Amino acid sequence: MMKVSVSRFANNPLLTPGDLAPSRPDFEVTCVLNPGAFRFGGRIGLLLRVAERPVPEPGFLATPILAEDGAVSVIRVREDDPGISSASSRSFAWNGRFLLTTMSHFLIAWSDDGGRTFTPDYSRRLMPEQSCEAYGIEDARVEQVDGEYLITFTAVGPAGIAVGCRRTRDWRSFSSTELILPPSNKDAALFPRRIGGRYRLLHRPSDPACGNHIYLAESPDLRCWGNHRCIAMTRPGCWDEERIGAGAAPVETAAGWLELYHGADRTGRYALGCLLLDRDDPARVLARSEAPFMEPEADYELNGFYGNCIFTNGQIVDGDRVLLYYGASDSVVCGAELRISELLASLKIGDFGRKTA
Amino acid sequence: MMKVSVSRFANNPLLTPGDLAPSRPDFEVTCVLNPGAFRFGGRIGLLLRVAERPVPEPGFLATPILAEDGAVSVIRVREDDPGISSASSRSFAWNGRFLLTTMSHFLIAWSDDGGRTFTPDYSRRLMPEQSCEAYGIEDARVEQVDGEYLITFTAVGPAGIAVGCRRTRDWRSFSSTELILPPSNKDAALFPRRIGGRYRLLHRPSDPACGNHIYLAESPDLRCWGNHRCIAMTRPGCWDEERIGAGAAPVETAAGWLELYHGADRTGRYALGCLLLDRDDPARVLARSEAPFMEPEADYELNGFYGNCIFTNGQIVDGDRVLLYYGASDSVVCGAELRISELLASLKIGDFGRKTA
Repeated sequence: MMKVSVSRFANNPLLTPGDLAPSRPDFEVTCVLNPGAFRFGGRIGLLLRVAERPVPEPGFLATPILAEDGAVSVIRVREDDPGISSASSRSFAWNGRFLLTTMSHFLIAWSDDGGRTFTPDYSRRLMPEQSCEAYGIEDARVEQVDGEYLITFTAVGPAGIAVGCRRTRDWRSFSSTELILPPSNKDAALFPRRIGGRYRLLHRPSDPACGNHIYLAESPDLRCWGNHRCIAMTRPGCWDEERIGAGAAPVETAAGWLELYHGADRTGRYALGCLLLDRDDPARVLARSEAPFMEPEADYELNGFYGNCIFTNGQIVDGDRVLLYYGASDSVVCGAELRISELLASLKIGDFGRKTA
Repeated sequence: MMKVSVSRFANNPLLTPGDLAPSRPDFEVTCVLNPGAFRFGGRIGLLLRVAERPVPEPGFLATPILAEDGAVSVIRVREDDPGISSASSRSFAWNGRFLLTTMSHFLIAWSDDGGRTFTPDYSRRLMPEQSCEAYGIEDARVEQVDGEYLITFTAVGPAGIAVGCRRTRDWRSFSSTELILPPSNKDAALFPRRIGGRYRLLHRPSDPACGNHIYLAESPDLRCWGNHRCIAMTRPGCWDEERIGAGAAPVETAAGWLELYHGADRTGRYALGCLLLDRDDPARVLARSEAPFMEPEADYELNGFYGNCIFTNGQIVDGDRVLLYYGASDSVVCGAELRISELLASLKIGDFGRKTA
């Protein structure tokens, strides 16, 4: 198997919480992570996930949520409240409600130097707006299809964690969120064009009893999705044994659709591998990374809010070159350069597919 | 609140496991339950869920599954196998695999006396056929839309518990299963006609962190579904505090769409209530049962494979009269007669709806 050269940007991390102003003065930015990436008007844009929380007050847990009136409000609970039944750095359960410790929104950052450095644009924040995203919006993937940008993301609300979609043509006005997939679902990556007359989407339903596997769906209109098929399962004993999920849009190559994906093992380590899908029938998996092409190694990938984690949902492809943007340790935004030819050469082409009748 | 008269059939249970021949001689029928109901050729048909297992062998757990070659095979595990990590009457986990103790399929039974007695038709078994239903097919809802019968059901496989759909016009030949909703999802009930140009569907995604609530979806073609919205959540402290799910298709009335649904409380008791949805915008909930209109009372509803449970997914409507078919204690098939006017009168019409932006 050929080795894939991964050139991490010398200026990593590209953006850290300290680089960003919070959305309001009584909040602080705890993490900036998992950016979507796109080209617009000659520039490269990142759609950053910004996770914020109220400035901490000793002895209290607090979380922002979108209230019924459409404004962001704060739930504040004493740490010794008997209604708290579980608590981690990411979430807590309080009187039967499942709450996150931070609320995420999206902020755009632009690059004028080909994607090496980024400046936040505070005129472009996308906030939660509806009940289905009352606890936050996370991990945007951006894909331009038929001239329109579609943003697919994780919408977290009291009735579940689902896949939302907003649309824009000008990156100024955006459609309101529609849930394109019901809970529990994440990691929805659109193909850039129709295949066999139908739009296609990779997604990752999640079920504690049955696992966290990658599905393929199809659509006549980019709004309604059906014919869901599991095309890749987690692999016991492997680097991707616990959960897998698509990264950004699949890249069309002569060999097939190349999809960069994340896998987590039992210890919770997140690394990156790839899938190669048949060009005409993307339900057919032609090859899959036996080992990750990229693993947490740098200090900023090993240590942070959630250490030992790299997660990608944004990339810019230019010929054979991929600028891969990723969240490191759920804390900071980083970049790396890779070659598609090397990713393809690292794969042993064979039939790794599940039979789909 | 007006009382709803529920006339249980005098000949309940209508069908028990002992009334049915297994699909093969080395299997036994453990449960017959949760039938879909439909009219065809002047008769009433039930699409029975038949749960089978290999004839038990002392000291072993065994479960039928659909093997890669498309035949039903048996997994047999010693009860003291160290790979077994959990076991209940319904399922067990073995070496990281989640397995059911029975496999369900569908069998048609016909009534020539207006839906009071039913005879199984062994020429009409619908078996699992694909990987996504390798552990069984369960809880069929039948609805005739645009002249075709659509059967929506729970497809259980190694990659999750999802909503499958098969189609028929003649109840002899059936399309192969397409998953119309990804895991974890159940209880999908089609509306009988388009509303505002779009087909509609109630469904119940399931998420241990966020709950078991009823969603509404829409479709241009009955195959692909989108614009998912949570329209009814479980209610803490109520009879439907733990999980809710639609029954058969909503019934169109002058007051709105009347949907009979099941609710379970913290003790696992399943009872039946109703929702009234706006006729033109079924995302608007106009009313909801404060108390169940029907609760487990009869001996066959209180005791069985899973006692204290009534569950409906099939009904025949004739003017004001509803013949309600239901599974009792997950063991037997029963019937009851109700009046729509009484169900409507039992509801306090008000705005019980979630705001949906």
